[in-house]
Amino acid sequence: MGSIFGDLFRVATFGESHGSAIGCIIDGCPAGLALDVQDFAADMARRAPGNSPYASKRKEPDEVEILSGTFGGVTTGAPIALVIYNRDQRPEDYDNLARVFRPGHGDYTYTAKYSIRDHRGGGRASGRETAARVAAGAVAKKILTELGVTVAARALPMDYADLEECMAAGDSMGSVVEGKISGLAAGIGEPVFDKLSADLAKALMSIGGATGIEFGVGFAAANRRGSENNDGFSWKDGKIYKTSNNAGGIMAGISDGDKICFKLAFKPPSSIALPQSTANMDGDNVEISIKGRHDAVIAPRACVVAEAMAAIVLVNHIFRSLTDTMHQVKKAYKKGLPHQR
Amino acid sequence: MGSIFGDLFRVATFGESHGSAIGCIIDGCPAGLALDVQDFAADMARRAPGNSPYASKRKEPDEVEILSGTFGGVTTGAPIALVIYNRDQRPEDYDNLARVFRPGHGDYTYTAKYSIRDHRGGGRASGRETAARVAAGAVAKKILTELGVTVAARALPMDYADLEECMAAGDSMGSVVEGKISGLAAGIGEPVFDKLSADLAKALMSIGGATGIEFGVGFAAANRRGSENNDGFSWKDGKIYKTSNNAGGIMAGISDGDKICFKLAFKPPSSIALPQSTANMDGDNVEISIKGRHDAVIAPRACVVAEAMAAIVLVNHIFRSLTDTMHQVKKAYKKGLPHQR
Amino acid sequence: MGSIFGDLFRVATFGESHGSAIGCIIDGCPAGLALDVQDFAADMARRAPGNSPYASKRKEPDEVEILSGTFGGVTTGAPIALVIYNRDQRPEDYDNLARVFRPGHGDYTYTAKYSIRDHRGGGRASGRETAARVAAGAVAKKILTELGVTVAARALPMDYADLEECMAAGDSMGSVVEGKISGLAAGIGEPVFDKLSADLAKALMSIGGATGIEFGVGFAAANRRGSENNDGFSWKDGKIYKTSNNAGGIMAGISDGDKICFKLAFKPPSSIALPQSTANMDGDNVEISIKGRHDAVIAPRACVVAEAMAAIVLVNHIFRSLTDTMHQVKKAYKKGLPHQR
Amino acid sequence: MGSIFGDLFRVATFGESHGSAIGCIIDGCPAGLALDVQDFAADMARRAPGNSPYASKRKEPDEVEILSGTFGGVTTGAPIALVIYNRDQRPEDYDNLARVFRPGHGDYTYTAKYSIRDHRGGGRASGRETAARVAAGAVAKKILTELGVTVAARALPMDYADLEECMAAGDSMGSVVEGKISGLAAGIGEPVFDKLSADLAKALMSIGGATGIEFGVGFAAANRRGSENNDGFSWKDGKIYKTSNNAGGIMAGISDGDKICFKLAFKPPSSIALPQSTANMDGDNVEISIKGRHDAVIAPRACVVAEAMAAIVLVNHIFRSLTDTMHQVKKAYKKGLPHQR
Repeated sequence: MGSIFGDLFRVATFGESHGSAIGCIIDGCPAGLALDVQDFAADMARRAPGNSPYASKRKEPDEVEILSGTFGGVTTGAPIALVIYNRDQRPEDYDNLARVFRPGHGDYTYTAKYSIRDHRGGGRASGRETAARVAAGAVAKKILTELGVTVAARALPMDYADLEECMAAGDSMGSVVEGKISGLAAGIGEPVFDKLSADLAKALMSIGGATGIEFGVGFAAANRRGSENNDGFSWKDGKIYKTSNNAGGIMAGISDGDKICFKLAFKPPSSIALPQSTANMDGDNVEISIKGRHDAVIAPRACVVAEAMAAIVLVNHIFRSLTDTMHQVKKAYKKGLPHQR
Repeated sequence: MGSIFGDLFRVATFGESHGSAIGCIIDGCPAGLALDVQDFAADMARRAPGNSPYASKRKEPDEVEILSGTFGGVTTGAPIALVIYNRDQRPEDYDNLARVFRPGHGDYTYTAKYSIRDHRGGGRASGRETAARVAAGAVAKKILTELGVTVAARALPMDYADLEECMAAGDSMGSVVEGKISGLAAGIGEPVFDKLSADLAKALMSIGGATGIEFGVGFAAANRRGSENNDGFSWKDGKIYKTSNNAGGIMAGISDGDKICFKLAFKPPSSIALPQSTANMDGDNVEISIKGRHDAVIAPRACVVAEAMAAIVLVNHIFRSLTDTMHQVKKAYKKGLPHQR
Repeated sequence: MGSIFGDLFRVATFGESHGSAIGCIIDGCPAGLALDVQDFAADMARRAPGNSPYASKRKEPDEVEILSGTFGGVTTGAPIALVIYNRDQRPEDYDNLARVFRPGHGDYTYTAKYSIRDHRGGGRASGRETAARVAAGAVAKKILTELGVTVAARALPMDYADLEECMAAGDSMGSVVEGKISGLAAGIGEPVFDKLSADLAKALMSIGGATGIEFGVGFAAANRRGSENNDGFSWKDGKIYKTSNNAGGIMAGISDGDKICFKLAFKPPSSIALPQSTANMDGDNVEISIKGRHDAVIAPRACVVAEAMAAIVLVNHIFRSLTDTMHQVKKAYKKGLPHQR
Repeated sequence: MGSIFGDLFRVATFGESHGSAIGCIIDGCPAGLALDVQDFAADMARRAPGNSPYASKRKEPDEVEILSGTFGGVTTGAPIALVIYNRDQRPEDYDNLARVFRPGHGDYTYTAKYSIRDHRGGGRASGRETAARVAAGAVAKKILTELGVTVAARALPMDYADLEECMAAGDSMGSVVEGKISGLAAGIGEPVFDKLSADLAKALMSIGGATGIEFGVGFAAANRRGSENNDGFSWKDGKIYKTSNNAGGIMAGISDGDKICFKLAFKPPSSIALPQSTANMDGDNVEISIKGRHDAVIAPRACVVAEAMAAIVLVNHIFRSLTDTMHQVKKAYKKGLPHQR
């Protein structure tokens, strides 16, 4: 299981869709960051189901409890444990699917991997897992705010009439999240393997249902010429500017100070009410119709998850960048006791 | 610097475009793999410039020397050091660009990051760096071959008339690499963060010039319905099959036993002979024309680099999968001395 | 903060002495291991205070709850979250020490590091933190049991009359834990840096109050000659044996199949009732006497913590050893779906 | 194989005793550090054999070549590859030992682990491997020098008459290295697992032949009382001082600003000329006498290796400490291009 993410600001998550709780431990949050349970509310609400006509009707208040790592409303440097109790779990909803390999789901691959199957709502392969990501992301965003960095994602507009027709038919739709990162200094990213684009790609592609990622003009660059695609530079009033941003804010894997732009494609949710043919674990071919509380489209709720993952990557990379030069190291290396007079 | 990749099969690379050598250390290659210098020749030749009308005319024999880790033509379990001496470096070719921020290059971002600039051919931000990846990838592929896994990538066909016209004009073209992985068992990949798709995305997006990655139907899934996109299962003659492969061989981040398919977009190479406006480090706006030995398109030479990175990811993930179940652990845990009678 | 331990079997811990809970997430436990809350009881009881005349009188039932990672009493491969609620926290006990740097404590160094101080019982620098280690260690031990490996530690005998006199005087005593690992195959350990001895040393020295570690004859080897100290080999009845075990079961950083023996020294607990001179955060020199519920000696309760840390190291190293040879890799690599017929 | 050490300042080493070269890649050295081949000479000479009457007569000039990572005598942030060619390898010296398990050596355990044996001088399990550590340590020490931190180790005095008698008899002696670290700020170390003491213990115990490590009073603390052992604090002239240093400069795993003191025990070298009984790989019990060029005692040449390992740990921990507080992060986070006017 690869449920730990990051190197300096590390997030370990746990929890299944229909277990008793989900949550995470954040190891590496600097001391001195104001943090209390209110800081999670807005993002948790954006992720929560039940807030959109196109989302699952599962009702989860998704209140984050802080079990450790703060004292007097401020982080202490100790690991921050966050827990969200599952209040509306209904594992029995899934009993009839316990031995079926649902089309497009992880049922088959999890069984192949672990030789055991937790059929309760997909277990770990459930969108519910992203609640822990969003909670951790809220802490990462607070750090970024202190550094003047903003992460914002939205679902690309889609045809809502089509979407409603599709839902009415018991079907689901694919979608795209568009993200923008503003205010990041130039110089963030670690070539040659841990390029900022590469690490953002990993983080974003780890979100359930993601099928593709691109930066800047992305796949369209494949049909462009260099003369048209190259981002040049220009001095004006003693400041240097980029004259275009086709690269989407990352050059040679390192941020260039410009806005970072990405698009993240999502497949249509695989749980649909329409009848589907598939196989079960007993050697039979069966027809199933997946009832219950499922999203018709991923992007609207996944925006905040994408923001969270991007924010965690950015904090990690900003922290790594503090040792880029001897000059920075000397500046940040703290000598002596702060309270010493 | 993020120049170490992998966790169980780890590759540390070094070397600048116009330094004395490039190479890598592989830590974690199992003992008992036949390996000698011939094993690198074919892939190094595919990557080498000078073999295509559309590639740099730089001549590098790119002979890999093995400095450690084998004995009698077989790996011993010790780290494998591979070195490739740069025979045709011409750092002086770059003297006139020493203080210019070339459009689309890493000149600006490397300078922002490190406050120092190795202008000799882009230093670490050069395609030459990929020779070390290909050398390491050749070892990874040998392991995969023993396990029945194949990685193959090719450049998507393009209009060669257009490309020749573009080169004649001193310009460059974007391109796409298409990759396929065959023979991989179901069950490889580590949710929730280290999904196989996520780690492949990172590895492939870390190749210089990559602008986007997608798996299976990829971005097209954003315009599909679930009923059309879901991959179902079917039993036939006592065996289970997938009835489609829209997901591209990875479901919920874990391989499903089917062919893994990805597309990787590359921007046009940024070094072009056409005049371009840009800025230098002295506060001036200048016009430059980049002479020298440069590729007109990335994909043809990048195929083998993509194969290498995918192969390294696969070896890492296969190794991680060996502890998926207690049953596997018991089977592989070796008791006693092999030579004990 | 370095609160994550291990690479393949990873443990992330959280929790302060007088916060609401402590616990951990285990990422990388294989699927198929029987595990329920009873499996923690014996070890938690050994660690718990209140069971010895020489230990703190703090009463903690230390019941472990499993929040995730099992289904039907068996691990699923998903991360295992374990939580222990602090029932007898009394943060107010420490209010009078809030600004004092207690002798021998982490008060000063934590303040120097984080510029903030969680004075409630030492926060993260408290023996209470080890409860999470013991919980994680219980899972590691279950894995080892399946592989025939046993870890056992005990406090070296001390003079109990002396100890009682020392306690009566409001003082504390140093101590030594002796550990033995039996049944481990030869071949475990990863030179040159991750030697089994080196990783055990790190794990054991990370326990609060540890001041030294040695393997086999340890420091006494410094006064020995090679002819006396070398462990030789001998064949008998077609089996190979070591003729001595001065090295303590590890040669060149790799287990040799013999019993692994270590000794771990602990300083006397720093919290003592005897008056001590020290400084506070306000620039004053003060005299303090530390009341409350404290241990007079560390080793008796630390035995089970040492076992836990050793067990976690062993599981990690056994898992890493599964890729020592191509032969092992091929044997453990699982092809196809287990349920496929 | 565990041949990569560190997290932010990472060192990957390679090379066998009698292969063509040994060396390392350093990934994570900040840009802007002056570095050329002269910087390695003094430490390499201290490690080199042939400089002491008690050391191997093997002659190795041990000249370090820099293959990458510097430009104009200054580090660029790119990985630094260092290589030392083996000039005096004589693998044939070992042919008669090719199938013998030498007492006290890694012959047996390496064979058990890898099912293959590189008998040429012990392959990777040779003191020669430490040359790469010393080379990497020289870079770490240069960084420490810039930060005012000094690492110094020496062999504890021994009875040289005894030692000469022992050598004359074809035997070897155990020894102890004593190390001191000066000038390190308070606040370095990452509880609860990556305590400074724990990470130093791992690093130092990974040196071949190490059998035990202790900090401050070490094992003697086991026989002390708290009232005697606790290090208190005192204000004088507006500055805070420790009133003793029994802990050896590390409290609760974090440096306290005082001198860090450790002792590292080494066994007697296992290669001795005296006849020894042991087993070979063919089922025979044999008597051997190990001729050739071997050290009679480890500590004198291991001092500089201990310094190197300690220095690498310190650089890693200092780098990690730069994100201890939000205040530090803000100070070190570099906005904008340095050359921007």
